[in-house]
Order: sequence, then structure tokens, then C-alpha cells
Amino acid sequence: MKKLVFGIDIGGTNTAFGLVDETGEIFGESAISTKSYMRYDDYPRYIEDLAKAMKTLMNGVNFNFELVGIGVGAPNANYYKGTVEIPSNMWKYSEEQVAAGMKEEDRIFHFADDLGKHFAGTPVYITNDANAATIGEMVYGGAKGMKNFIMITLGTGVGSGFVANGEMIYGHDGFAGEFGHVVVERGGRECGCGRKGCLEAYTSANGIKRTAFELLATMNDPSPIREYSFDQLDSAMLSQFAAKGDAIAKECFRLTGQKLGYALADAVTITSPEAIFIFGGLAKAGDLIFDPIKWYMEENMLITFKNKVKVLPSELQNKNAAILGASALVWQAQ
Amino acid sequence: MKKLVFGIDIGGTNTAFGLVDETGEIFGESAISTKSYMRYDDYPRYIEDLAKAMKTLMNGVNFNFELVGIGVGAPNANYYKGTVEIPSNMWKYSEEQVAAGMKEEDRIFHFADDLGKHFAGTPVYITNDANAATIGEMVYGGAKGMKNFIMITLGTGVGSGFVANGEMIYGHDGFAGEFGHVVVERGGRECGCGRKGCLEAYTSANGIKRTAFELLATMNDPSPIREYSFDQLDSAMLSQFAAKGDAIAKECFRLTGQKLGYALADAVTITSPEAIFIFGGLAKAGDLIFDPIKWYMEENMLITFKNKVKVLPSELQNKNAAILGASALVWQAQ
Repeated sequence: MKKLVFGIDIGGTNTAFGLVDETGEIFGESAISTKSYMRYDDYPRYIEDLAKAMKTLMNGVNFNFELVGIGVGAPNANYYKGTVEIPSNMWKYSEEQVAAGMKEEDRIFHFADDLGKHFAGTPVYITNDANAATIGEMVYGGAKGMKNFIMITLGTGVGSGFVANGEMIYGHDGFAGEFGHVVVERGGRECGCGRKGCLEAYTSANGIKRTAFELLATMNDPSPIREYSFDQLDSAMLSQFAAKGDAIAKECFRLTGQKLGYALADAVTITSPEAIFIFGGLAKAGDLIFDPIKWYMEENMLITFKNKVKVLPSELQNKNAAILGASALVWQAQ
Repeated sequence: MKKLVFGIDIGGTNTAFGLVDETGEIFGESAISTKSYMRYDDYPRYIEDLAKAMKTLMNGVNFNFELVGIGVGAPNANYYKGTVEIPSNMWKYSEEQVAAGMKEEDRIFHFADDLGKHFAGTPVYITNDANAATIGEMVYGGAKGMKNFIMITLGTGVGSGFVANGEMIYGHDGFAGEFGHVVVERGGRECGCGRKGCLEAYTSANGIKRTAFELLATMNDPSPIREYSFDQLDSAMLSQFAAKGDAIAKECFRLTGQKLGYALADAVTITSPEAIFIFGGLAKAGDLIFDPIKWYMEENMLITFKNKVKVLPSELQNKNAAILGASALVWQAQ
């Protein structure tokens, strides 16, 4: 019988899921809202409604199959414990609950167990979105057969996944791979994590926008960027302006690639990967971002590793990477 | 029959070796000079003389044993290939050989094969000294049973070994774990590797001395350090002065711990280790160096990892760590 797995991608807005086979073909896809279950007390109902929607999708498949597992990509997920721990945008306490003394550190959801109850006997694996993307690349994408590589996801945040000896590095506590929070500028830009100078504050979608506004101050070139407020501008617009030759937008990409290239040269000294894959919105800018990443990485590379490490776009870039990545967790665990 | 392995530590001056059992007990130890075989053409004779000295040591053991393997720690060693590649202080070309066009990149020694020929059937494993120390800690020391940890060696250079999922990270090319060459100060001090601002330029034995001379310029405190030339001073003297309360020497340790603490906070975001072990001359300074390492690491730690990661002195610190580490390679590979 054909074997399928569920891949579930939990975002702050929607939870998307699909049934996927071993080659990465998706047989049916659906979604429920995450946003409508924002409160702590909504969580049990969220699990029930998700399970219900998943079963509906299963019933719609017009051939016999065996469901061999469920893979989940979620923010703040812990692979070892099967938990989602203190997520910033989901299942939050009400003011009353905070007043009643409920503690942030107890806001832990046993997601794998809770969803698993609805699919008795089917294993549930969960990890964060960047790790899921990493395993997706390994199972279906450009990292097939690679034993040592790094995945960098450039989106709202900067995520990463490190693979060594053919295995995902989850670390002692299950939370390894937070490369977006390596400090690249001591005392630099404020980061969402409460510290300063993290890579994410420079190379996320928001980071490159912050760079644009810095450059509006330091450069004199006329630019359409000057017509937008901070809230109006986004990184996709910067890509378009840069592609048309706008000097400030091009400089944004150079500086973003520089920060990332420097940081990657350091990461290479630790894990010595065969390749580094770049995924996410900013990666779509192509040479605009890849050229400076490679140039500054090589310029700063320890001689041992010079001209050895490939920097490549993710091969899942234009596919349903989040669902594929989550589903890959199951195949990887087989 | 009792099983023993050889542990061989190749330094620029001497090559020390010993016969070691599974518990780390050393049955006989000896050494030959490395320095007397400095030239490229000396290498074959070096291998022969080393093998001879090893056999002499074996004959001196007064019980029957089985030699199950040979483990070697050497600079620029490649675990996968069994080679020593372009070592800076050994087996160098003569001026005539350079003039004749012999190329640095061809200065590669197939050490494992060459030594192995003298011990037919006995496997030979080779890696760099820091990786050997790491595996020694895992097999005989404080990292026993740990699946995720980092070893930092503070000596003439700064070496490291990263263990994830219970396995040494050798990386794609076998040279991973060069944490001493993470850039901690962009455009900072010149490093022996030809680049600037590497961790090693600040936290090696020579690095802390460089810090002392910087402080002689920036601080006004009287200090015995002022009586020594750069060539006279060494890091052990700084430990002694600091232990007696010398303000400049104490500041040296604080700044060294700060640089290392910052760098370790970044390393933790990548591999999320259970513990970080510190080994080598500077580690002997105890709280003088451990206190600032821990303080600055925690101050800069991403909240996810705060107060989770132990910083510990190596448990092989006062033992024959280099021989033990090299020997551990064999037990680890069994």
C-alpha cells in the first residue's frame, strides 16, 4: 500500500497541512486558521479542529494508503519533548490568567502527545520551522546525500539548521541552530530577542529594511525608497528597486550579504559544511544577495576552508517548502 | 587477553606515545624527537624510527596483550584521509626543493598508511590535537556519557572540538572545529592564520600576553609586568601576578574571559551543548579565567539557553591528556 505522511506547518496566521509521499509529491492540502485560536484556553479546541480537518483531508484521498507518521514544523518546538514552549504569537494567557499568577515558563504545550491521541499508533514528530526546512532539503532537495550542510532561512526572522554526520543538530535541549541570534555587531541594533546586534537584526526581511533607512541617512542618491515610510516599505520592494539599478537598494543587498557572509565564514570554521543553502524571501533576490554573501564569506574564510563551501539557493524555494519540510521529519525518522 | 592501544601525540618538538587500556591507565610511555626530523626528506626516517621506538615500548610490557589500534593526535591531521596536510612546523621543504618548484599544497603525508605498514592489521586513526583532547574527555573524562558538548583548548593556539549527537563533528573535509579562528574583533589583532581579529589572537597564551602589553599602555597601575620585555613575559607569569592581586594581570584575565565568553555564547546558539570544557595552560588559572568566561557568556546568552550550559575544567587537565586523547580515538572507533 502507498505510504503517506502528514506535513503540518504552524504559522502565527494559518496552520497548513498536506499528505505527502516519499518523493515529495503532495496528495491533498488544506489549512485551518491559527489566529482564531490565539488564547491559551483555545489550545485544546485548536488541536481538535486540526485533527478533524486532517481526517477530512484523508477521507478525500481516492486511493488506499497507510499513514505512517505526522511531521510538524512550529515556532519554539522541541524535537526531544514533542512540545511547543512559550510561543510568542500563539496560545497566550489572558490578562486575568496573568493576574491570577500563571507563569510564562509554564506555557508549554505537549503538542505531539495531544495531536497523537487523535491518530492512535501514528508517531508525531515536531521541530521548529527552520529545522523542518533543513530536513526537507535533505530528504527532497539539494542536500540529498549530503552529510554536512547548513540551512539558512531568511524571512521575518533568520532561522537555521545545522546537519553534521548526516544528523540534524538538535543539541542538548532540542533548541540548537539559532544562528539568527549570533551577535554580528557588539552593541548593535536591537533584536526582538531582547539583546543587541544579532544577525537577525541585519539580515531578516525587517533587517534589510532597517539598513535601507540607515542608508537614506548616510547616502545622498535620489531613490524611490525616499517616498516610503518605514511601515510602508518592505524587502520585496527593495529587491525590485535594486533590480532596476537603484543605488541605495543595491547597497542594502551588499551590506546584508556582507553581514551574512562574515557570519557564515565563522560558522564554517565550526562545522565545515559541504554546502550552505539559503531559503526564504530574500533568497529570491538571486545574485543581488548571493554574490555579496559568497564574496564576503570567501574574503573572510580561514585558508583551510577557502573555495570549498558551496552557497546554494534552496531547491524547495518555489515549492510548498513548509509542508514538505515538516513531512520530511517522518521519513528522516524512519 | 588485555587490550591496549597506542596513543601518539605529535608536537613540533617531541612525539610522545604510550600504551593505554580502556580505563585510561597508561602502561609504558616513551618519546622521540620530532625536531630532529624537520625536513621534508626526513619524514620516511621519522616514521621508521617512531615505529621502532613503539615496538621497543611494546616489548617492555611484562604481560600479554593485544594491540587493537593506534590513535594519533597531530597538527593539521585529517581524520577521513589519515593524512597530515601542510603542517607549519614539520617536514618542510628545503630552499632547493622550493626552488625546484615543489608546491606547498602537495606537502601531504599519508601518516596513517605509512605508520600502519609497520603494524600490519592494526588500524591507525589520526586527528588534530584538539579533536583528540575532545574524544579523550568523552572516553576518559568529564564528558563521559554526554552527547553534546564543546571542548576548548587554550594553549599556544586555541583549538576546539564539537560533539553533537554523540559524534565528533569532523565536517565535510575532516577539518571542522577551528573555533580559534572565529573572528571576534573585525579588523582586530593580526592572527597567525593571516587574517585579523581571530579568537586565538586574544585568548591563546600569546593572546593574553598581547592583552597585557595593551594594558601597560592604557592603565597606570604599577605592576611587576612593567619589568619584562614582550619576549620575557609568558602567560604563566600573568597567572602568578594575578593570583597575588596585580591589577593589570587581573584585568588581562577579565578581558580574555570576556572575549571567550562572548564567542561561546554564539557557539551555544549553534550546537546547544550540555557543557563546555576548557583545557590547557590558561585553564589552570581557575576562577581567574572561569569566572569572567561564565559571566560574559551568560550576559550575552540568548534567553533560550540561559543558565543551562555548564562551563567546566577538563578532567584530563593534570593527566597525560595528549596521549590519552590520541588513544581514545581507537576506543571511540570500536
